[in-house]
Amino acid sequence: MDEHDRFLPKYYKISREIIAKIQSGELLPGMKVPSENEIINTYNVSNTTARKILNEIENAGWATRIKGKGTFVKTRNVDRSVTRILGFTKNMIEAGYKPSTKLLDASILEEDYTDTINGRNYTLASPIYRIKRLRFADNVPMMLEVRYISLFLCPDINKKDLEKPLYDYYQDLYHHRLTEVNQMISTIIIKDEETDRLFGVDKRIPAFLVSGVTFTGREIILEMERSIYRGDRYSFSVRAT
Amino acid sequence: MDEHDRFLPKYYKISREIIAKIQSGELLPGMKVPSENEIINTYNVSNTTARKILNEIENAGWATRIKGKGTFVKTRNVDRSVTRILGFTKNMIEAGYKPSTKLLDASILEEDYTDTINGRNYTLASPIYRIKRLRFADNVPMMLEVRYISLFLCPDINKKDLEKPLYDYYQDLYHHRLTEVNQMISTIIIKDEETDRLFGVDKRIPAFLVSGVTFTGREIILEMERSIYRGDRYSFSVRAT
Repeated sequence: MDEHDRFLPKYYKISREIIAKIQSGELLPGMKVPSENEIINTYNVSNTTARKILNEIENAGWATRIKGKGTFVKTRNVDRSVTRILGFTKNMIEAGYKPSTKLLDASILEEDYTDTINGRNYTLASPIYRIKRLRFADNVPMMLEVRYISLFLCPDINKKDLEKPLYDYYQDLYHHRLTEVNQMISTIIIKDEETDRLFGVDKRIPAFLVSGVTFTGREIILEMERSIYRGDRYSFSVRAT
Repeated sequence: MDEHDRFLPKYYKISREIIAKIQSGELLPGMKVPSENEIINTYNVSNTTARKILNEIENAGWATRIKGKGTFVKTRNVDRSVTRILGFTKNMIEAGYKPSTKLLDASILEEDYTDTINGRNYTLASPIYRIKRLRFADNVPMMLEVRYISLFLCPDINKKDLEKPLYDYYQDLYHHRLTEVNQMISTIIIKDEETDRLFGVDKRIPAFLVSGVTFTGREIILEMERSIYRGDRYSFSVRAT
């Protein structure tokens, strides 16, 4: 525990402990959060405090109280369909959130970029415009995105407003038809201090690492991506037929 | 560290430390494993020991040495396509592994089973045959699978050999046409002691939690699933168009 924690009210500290269990996946969506009585016994608190703890968890959006049944861990907030080419902005609007973006870094690379995706090597030729952005839903940081964009296929994209959806630029400004996106979804434990700081989490949480390559026309690489999606806020939805 | 660790040879202990970094995602596929010189300096060992450590990591299948370039973390061993209805057995054979299965538990449930998948509730009506299986690739445990099968649609499936692919029974024995599989992929940190023991890992590793529902005909639920895939051995491949 952090040395500053002793200044926090008890109900708040305990609610954070329980939320950390949801974030790490120890308590899964649909599972019951400890009841008022269990909290009283486990943490040795009054029933007023136990109620405050449950309210805090519910108000922070992690659980739902069902009358006469208990408090249950909510489903992950955002589902992302993996089989549609869908940018973050549109995904969030469809899910009912207000998306926003913070540009963290932008630079021009004079070297090619290579990544292995689903066992195959893909190389994007230089010059490359590399941008790093933090993406928010209702002001909660959701995803740390790094994208590598062909400056040959998208000249002067480095002079555009990078808080707008890139897919719109590709299609409307540069008239590239996106033909295919290949992505590889891996899972990691967020350890990197910078990432922790950006996401504002103070516990180890699992995350999705998404590496992708976007093609225009016949197998021409337009951009590549390597992004980290918070595992406590995201799940991927799949429909196979 | 475990109290028994002092009996292990130094090179072995250090190689396990580095493998643990690959398993947790601190070292990602394509990244460089510490070089011979870095190992000598970091762990204060001889160059013979450093070479033994790198050999051990490579032989355990976690990295590949590229002459004159260094040792690199290998891509996750198995890609699983998320957009095809594909059982574990066929997936492993396609990936070049020998699949095997160990039945851990089987029981008949007299209550309905409900799960929330991609924000929607699905209920499979009782009676249900619930099986828990550990699935292996080349004798390495890869996935812990729990499936809930309709005994109404698959009568007497509890009397069949459950080391065979269930999809074959559904189609060949019961003549159900599988029309759709909806799955939700979440990510968790494996904490459960039983799961740790089954997978034979002694560090916290990330994992995929896959909840799914399989339909036959028009929206008739044939089975539901809730499985844990090792995140250090699996990645999911996606192709969006």
